[in-house]
Amino acid sequence: MIDKKMRVADLFAFYGELLTDKQKDVLTLYCLEDLSLAEIAEDLLISRQGVHDAVKRGTKLLEGYEERLKLMEKFKMNTVLFNDIHEKMTELNESISDPQMGHEDLKAQVKEVVSRVVHDIDRIIE
Amino acid sequence: MIDKKMRVADLFAFYGELLTDKQKDVLTLYCLEDLSLAEIAEDLLISRQGVHDAVKRGTKLLEGYEERLKLMEKFKMNTVLFNDIHEKMTELNESISDPQMGHEDLKAQVKEVVSRVVHDIDRIIE
Repeated sequence: MIDKKMRVADLFAFYGELLTDKQKDVLTLYCLEDLSLAEIAEDLLISRQGVHDAVKRGTKLLEGYEERLKLMEKFKMNTVLFNDIHEKMTELNESISDPQMGHEDLKAQVKEVVSRVVHDIDRIIE
Repeated sequence: MIDKKMRVADLFAFYGELLTDKQKDVLTLYCLEDLSLAEIAEDLLISRQGVHDAVKRGTKLLEGYEERLKLMEKFKMNTVLFNDIHEKMTELNESISDPQMGHEDLKAQVKEVVSRVVHDIDRIIE
């Protein structure tokens, strides 16, 4: 259930602006505020069934946008890549701070990082 | 006019899957094949006015998606950043291939690149 809500929250962050105001209100309370259907119904003065329908319809619309556009998937791939590059930069930073690190060793490490990062970027922006 | 077509082509690449089949057919010929309205009309056996309306309506929809989602803008920022990182990696690669490059100079350059790349990534994934 939590996984499902997180998935809807992710999709909502991407495509939420394409929903109606009512769907946005319901999904904000549902996945961002993590309220129950009964609590949302009380909050928005609509029936529990109305909340249920809005969540179902909104989720279906969001899934439909992702199925057609796959932009969230692409963004997540970018984020994985940025995190990987970030990690490699941290490793390089540790190496240049290490007085034991010799010139040839540093060159070898830089070469490896450059090769890895360039390969990853070429793959993603091809 | 060419700028306008390129803008529509970019938006179409992002959000085209949200259009109707007819709008997709027309916009494919309009911005990817670069045909005139008259040529598109002849190709698809519809009136020139019908083509004009489909281009106008399709473009308005695509602009509306970008206005609400701003995903193309975010993707373009990512691409600028990837290109910048790629360039920095190429510079590092040149330095490690240069037999004149001393250990301290290489460390200083690595430090600068790491600092720049980490700063840029932190800014974009914050």
